[in-house]
Amino acid sequence: MAKQKKQPRPKAETPKGFRDYFGAEVTERQRMLAEIAKVYHRYGFDPLETSAVETVEALGKFLPDVDRPNEGVFAFQEDDTWLALRYDMTAPLARVAAQFRNDLPNPYRRYTMGPVWRNEKPGPGRFRQFYQCDADTVGSGSVAADAEICAMLADCLEAVGIQRGDYVVRVNNRKVLNGVMEMAGLAGEEKEAERGIVLRAIDKLDRLGEGGVRALLGEGREDESGDFTQGAGLSTEQADGIVAFMQATAVDNATTINNLQELTEGSDVGTQGVAELEQIAELLAAQGYGPDRIVIDPSVVRGLGYYTGPVYEAELTFEVQNEKGQTVQFGSVAGGGRYDDLVKRFTGQEVPATGVSIGVDRLLAALRATGKLSGGTQGPVIVTVMDRDRMADYQAMAATLRQAGIRAEVYLGYPKNFGNQLKYADKRHSPVAVIHGSDAAARGVVQLKDLILGAKLAEDATLEEWKSQPAQTEVALSDLVSEVRTVIDRHA
Amino acid sequence: MAKQKKQPRPKAETPKGFRDYFGAEVTERQRMLAEIAKVYHRYGFDPLETSAVETVEALGKFLPDVDRPNEGVFAFQEDDTWLALRYDMTAPLARVAAQFRNDLPNPYRRYTMGPVWRNEKPGPGRFRQFYQCDADTVGSGSVAADAEICAMLADCLEAVGIQRGDYVVRVNNRKVLNGVMEMAGLAGEEKEAERGIVLRAIDKLDRLGEGGVRALLGEGREDESGDFTQGAGLSTEQADGIVAFMQATAVDNATTINNLQELTEGSDVGTQGVAELEQIAELLAAQGYGPDRIVIDPSVVRGLGYYTGPVYEAELTFEVQNEKGQTVQFGSVAGGGRYDDLVKRFTGQEVPATGVSIGVDRLLAALRATGKLSGGTQGPVIVTVMDRDRMADYQAMAATLRQAGIRAEVYLGYPKNFGNQLKYADKRHSPVAVIHGSDAAARGVVQLKDLILGAKLAEDATLEEWKSQPAQTEVALSDLVSEVRTVIDRHA
Repeated sequence: MAKQKKQPRPKAETPKGFRDYFGAEVTERQRMLAEIAKVYHRYGFDPLETSAVETVEALGKFLPDVDRPNEGVFAFQEDDTWLALRYDMTAPLARVAAQFRNDLPNPYRRYTMGPVWRNEKPGPGRFRQFYQCDADTVGSGSVAADAEICAMLADCLEAVGIQRGDYVVRVNNRKVLNGVMEMAGLAGEEKEAERGIVLRAIDKLDRLGEGGVRALLGEGREDESGDFTQGAGLSTEQADGIVAFMQATAVDNATTINNLQELTEGSDVGTQGVAELEQIAELLAAQGYGPDRIVIDPSVVRGLGYYTGPVYEAELTFEVQNEKGQTVQFGSVAGGGRYDDLVKRFTGQEVPATGVSIGVDRLLAALRATGKLSGGTQGPVIVTVMDRDRMADYQAMAATLRQAGIRAEVYLGYPKNFGNQLKYADKRHSPVAVIHGSDAAARGVVQLKDLILGAKLAEDATLEEWKSQPAQTEVALSDLVSEVRTVIDRHA
Repeated sequence: MAKQKKQPRPKAETPKGFRDYFGAEVTERQRMLAEIAKVYHRYGFDPLETSAVETVEALGKFLPDVDRPNEGVFAFQEDDTWLALRYDMTAPLARVAAQFRNDLPNPYRRYTMGPVWRNEKPGPGRFRQFYQCDADTVGSGSVAADAEICAMLADCLEAVGIQRGDYVVRVNNRKVLNGVMEMAGLAGEEKEAERGIVLRAIDKLDRLGEGGVRALLGEGREDESGDFTQGAGLSTEQADGIVAFMQATAVDNATTINNLQELTEGSDVGTQGVAELEQIAELLAAQGYGPDRIVIDPSVVRGLGYYTGPVYEAELTFEVQNEKGQTVQFGSVAGGGRYDDLVKRFTGQEVPATGVSIGVDRLLAALRATGKLSGGTQGPVIVTVMDRDRMADYQAMAATLRQAGIRAEVYLGYPKNFGNQLKYADKRHSPVAVIHGSDAAARGVVQLKDLILGAKLAEDATLEEWKSQPAQTEVALSDLVSEVRTVIDRHA
């Protein structure tokens, strides 16, 4: 019989653009999601968890920024149907709202949290699977729904540990922008391409400044690498209107709204948009959310093509170092807006909707950058193994500690080298090692090694201090739980 | 210009075999996962979250029950690489243990929870995406690791609300089974197929009884539908040994172990396996886990081919009605065992490992069947809209309630029909509706409608009781928070 050909060993690697999350990374995210869920819940939103897989047909072509069907998603064929991993939480919500329209409460307030997948080129810090944490109200055309979500967004940021003053929620309205474009002569279907260029240009104000945006509004712009971006071809007068709009933000919402009223005078949609912003500001003020937390800001446009009314974005305003060592504002961590046409795709009926998506991973990065994450949980108490044939005793000790609510485990590696057991305990950030040789067992005592104090002493103790071994104490076996707790509490 | 052809509307449907989870379904599962995570954490396990997508190469062909590469998974190609959604949590763990072997503590105790995907034919109650909640110890060859996981599994079941006595964790050892097979003349590579048939036959004892299993051990068996399953072709004497093994379970672990010692006498691997089971029973007894919670049970084999030593399974022993209306034991909700060869695929080095997987969705179904789930959270207080131009007042009321920690929302649908607002409140299981017309506003009061009492009265009140409207009260606006809380607490 011919010998079977040996298969080469598989590579132990995540696919490109994917990663694993360990220990504190997982618990910190879980805690953040739980805090946000509490706020969403308090606002009356109910949880929904859709499947990760949808039909490509249901997902539609509403991919961020660009209209390329089936690109940007991970898709696979089953019989005649193309399936794909969801790329956001909004498309699945639209499908649910249509599928269960006769059963769901109306309006339907739902929140959802989980991974989404993007089949895009991965880059440093850019992954193809990441978390989103969304809340949406489907079935309400009232701007009160938008205002409420802006207030909720501010509450969420404070709930996860962003101080008031360190963030701002900016609100704008697509209708105002459409009004301004109308006044600049960019109305009508045949100007759709130009409007898209204007939208993307405004979105780049932060990065390119007024000059760069003006270039994109006009003939176009060459970037440092020599790449040329085609402009919208506006005249200077047309561009003036757009730039005035971007810069209409004043110190208080009332003045901003006055500025916008002037810029949109003569455009019905623009006037309606400004009135909606005024209402939003009024509703927020009544709930106690002033411009220290939420401001009307015409420079916010949000990339997505499907927004039809109010749009909003949360920005962290404190400064961090970027990869190049430059000091920059941390920037956007959440955004959303009104999208009245997504459910209509399925049912043909208009269903107004508005919602927000919090970029949980970015928010975690922000808190990590400012040292505001606790860094996970304490390591377990390690019961070391002195005599292999007394494993049952050690397991009983660990069980006793656990039953008292103390995190504990028996060392389960090869026990011969005791140094390895203590190295393992250090690696696990264990606060206490329990040491119980046969001599101690005979005397009814047990040794406790305070590993946190031990590590401190190893760094800065004198020889005398070191010799006196203050980190190691002998206690009665019957006092194991209370003595271990004393050491843990000492470092809590 | 030719009119653009209208696209047909997409169907609002989840793909076949997938489903959505709403409200209480989501929160109940979250709560269960959190309770299990607490137990895993207390035993020293650290969280790990791997990506949903792995290379097919890394997943390998360790699919449940059958050896069919690439079948059973959702796979898609990217350039030269085939990627797939994970079908369990064990294959990704093996990849992680190999990829990060120089950084992880050794032994590495990890837990993980999340969805897995199976490209299988969906059926009633069988979905292609479901949750798993696993804990594994990688790098320990000690049976203490297996014993510990059995104890932890018992703790998990009690933590989520299964009463002691309503479950049992059954432990067996593949080595004992191999020893028994050796004694029956089924050793050696050329008997692999027969051993597989024996394994699957034992696994069906519950369903087929001794007669059915004997048929499968012998020539084969025709089921009710007329389908014929090929048997292992054993003689009656050979089958006797296997059947005696399945029936070796006694009232106490010591007797069971005695029975097994007799059945494996003469087989080295069998004797070793029985000694391991004896050790496990001893370790568990030392921790206080007797046969009321964990029993040695030779009839447990677990389907998966990759187990190499101890195997364990948690069964719920209380009775429920099945789809056919028959009274049956609820059955298996978790299982696992030792798999010493999975990491070796990547590194060539032996890495012993053992772990358990809890079927969270089955466990939820069990608790639901016995009425032990709370049914989710209370609905929000609904602030109704009497005058549309006073929306800011209503929003301020909702904000006040929320700031006091009370779940509250303003009705955001079309407010004209007040009956619809109350219907909406009922659908949301709202405890209280807040009603504030301009007359009440002028008098500084507000009406509270106790919706739970209201629903009760609607069912069984007399006309007089109904007329007196005890469910509706008028309170001072300044007492809104305390009065709402009184109504909520009344029904808590």
